[in-house]
Amino acid sequence: MTEMKDSITIEQGSGGSAMMALISELVLKKITRRGTGGVTLADLDDSGSVVVGDMEVVLTTDAHTVKPLFFPGGDIGALAASGTLNDISVMGVRPLALSSSLVIEEGFPGSDLSRILGSMNGVLDEVGADLITGDTKVLERGDVDGLIITTAGIGVCRAGSTIRDSGLGDGDRIIISGTVGDHGITILSVREGFDLQLKTGSDVGPVWGIVSSALDVGGVTAMKDPTRGGLANALNEMAEKSGLGIEIDEEAIPVREDVRSASEILGVDPYSITNEGKVVIAVDDGLADRVLEAVRGTARGREAAIIGTVVASHPGEVVMKTVVGGRRLMEAPVGDPAPRIC
Amino acid sequence: MTEMKDSITIEQGSGGSAMMALISELVLKKITRRGTGGVTLADLDDSGSVVVGDMEVVLTTDAHTVKPLFFPGGDIGALAASGTLNDISVMGVRPLALSSSLVIEEGFPGSDLSRILGSMNGVLDEVGADLITGDTKVLERGDVDGLIITTAGIGVCRAGSTIRDSGLGDGDRIIISGTVGDHGITILSVREGFDLQLKTGSDVGPVWGIVSSALDVGGVTAMKDPTRGGLANALNEMAEKSGLGIEIDEEAIPVREDVRSASEILGVDPYSITNEGKVVIAVDDGLADRVLEAVRGTARGREAAIIGTVVASHPGEVVMKTVVGGRRLMEAPVGDPAPRIC
Repeated sequence: MTEMKDSITIEQGSGGSAMMALISELVLKKITRRGTGGVTLADLDDSGSVVVGDMEVVLTTDAHTVKPLFFPGGDIGALAASGTLNDISVMGVRPLALSSSLVIEEGFPGSDLSRILGSMNGVLDEVGADLITGDTKVLERGDVDGLIITTAGIGVCRAGSTIRDSGLGDGDRIIISGTVGDHGITILSVREGFDLQLKTGSDVGPVWGIVSSALDVGGVTAMKDPTRGGLANALNEMAEKSGLGIEIDEEAIPVREDVRSASEILGVDPYSITNEGKVVIAVDDGLADRVLEAVRGTARGREAAIIGTVVASHPGEVVMKTVVGGRRLMEAPVGDPAPRIC
Repeated sequence: MTEMKDSITIEQGSGGSAMMALISELVLKKITRRGTGGVTLADLDDSGSVVVGDMEVVLTTDAHTVKPLFFPGGDIGALAASGTLNDISVMGVRPLALSSSLVIEEGFPGSDLSRILGSMNGVLDEVGADLITGDTKVLERGDVDGLIITTAGIGVCRAGSTIRDSGLGDGDRIIISGTVGDHGITILSVREGFDLQLKTGSDVGPVWGIVSSALDVGGVTAMKDPTRGGLANALNEMAEKSGLGIEIDEEAIPVREDVRSASEILGVDPYSITNEGKVVIAVDDGLADRVLEAVRGTARGREAAIIGTVVASHPGEVVMKTVVGGRRLMEAPVGDPAPRIC
């Protein structure tokens, strides 16, 4: 864990252990009204929730600060809609509606904003959710770099039926819904100005289709979308919160060949960087093959794979059997390697 | 109405007619998934909503970009919590929970962040709502000026029971819950570096106490919190959406003496600038005195006043009987006089 300094650092906003330290040492010390009954702020899950009678309302939010705003495979609009809809989806809840708050730098091109809003609408269409409210602020030149979009989202389910990132059971199988590292490596490649010949670009997109196909089969015990800090961070959080260990078979982790090459050139671990259209699904052993098949039958889940197993030994630790036959700890990164990846 | 240019302007983010033009000419053209059944994006009310069975879930959001972050009477934390809780409250719905998304400039003092979070918690405590989820992003120096806090909020009510800003009825009385202009004039005074000897500062705070006391009496037909664009903008929106006119008695509008003096020095109309702890309440004529009495009995509503009446003549127009005995149109401002008031 990283010690909290008085000045906020880039690392503290990058989704890994430094951010967790900031939240526990500062946010949770000051915010005593964290919710009760549902998923609370202290749970630090993908969403929070409030129980109202026999229903539970799920709420989540994310600020999107990606740079550049347009990148291979998507833009900040697709990201802002997908990111928040996905955080509802991984609670096992159908996303119903979004809010969108735009903070725009004076002089920003209206045509770019129009294109970005079109991308948001495309994602909403795919999921069948609606943008029902918003806010617009324009700041003077230099007060914000371009555009920040903060979305919040809601979903409703039967009280107590959310799927938590802490729900792992001994013997569960771990499924990843597709290749990892695509979004983060794409953004870094573009930003570094390398022509890394990435073939496809970011994976940004909604995971609700994948999630709902898995839920239809049943046996899902825990889910998380491996955004900031990547697969490594998601698995570590799930293991730690569940008080169980995870064994991962590196050979089974799907990584695009072009992403692997680019990550080597960039010196960045593809397991520790943001994905924006993937989900980690833990499933009862007996149903894992059927869930895998269902996920592979969806448009965004064709490259899904079973990559590991939950174990009672080494609680809170993720151990990876490497491609060369060794075993090593897959640690949660301190944070994403650079700011503004998402 | 202001024409949409290709480059986004400060005016388009300042809550008046220029922003309405931006939203209708750009946002509503691209976002076709706006919701159905509840309060939709196209309604441009203080919140949106989704109907689920016999319940309605209300969602709202605001980005808070105020400068300076600390000001007489409050700070960005009190503002971020109050602003969003108030947008739920004026739908006639008890606010249940907030999300908070922090975008922080690298190097921001942790002690300031701590103080700001403490202010948010104080507002949550007053209302009895919880902060259940959040997000933290840290941007490199120069990519954002200090701190932006975007909050979203939810509430739940019986389906169809929200109170809309379009609900005015002919003959309704218009109540303002207290003095106007306090927040906006405070921020401008501090920013201009004038020692304007303001006695109290911003009115930032939650209005749920005021709203619930009014709802307990009954007869409330429409509500709106007069934030950006101030009282003038709120009244014009209510009149326009309801297809009715409003007659305002200027002498009845409560304005603090120090705010009036400062607004004259600044050359800013106190009726056209942001309030952050006030609510405009329209009430059936027969219950107006009782609602006024109830509102005056609350801690934040002691200076409430009946300031006007809804009329069938001049639909969509707000006409003010001035203190000198004349009559003039109280127009919706193009926008707040400067960015980053809230």
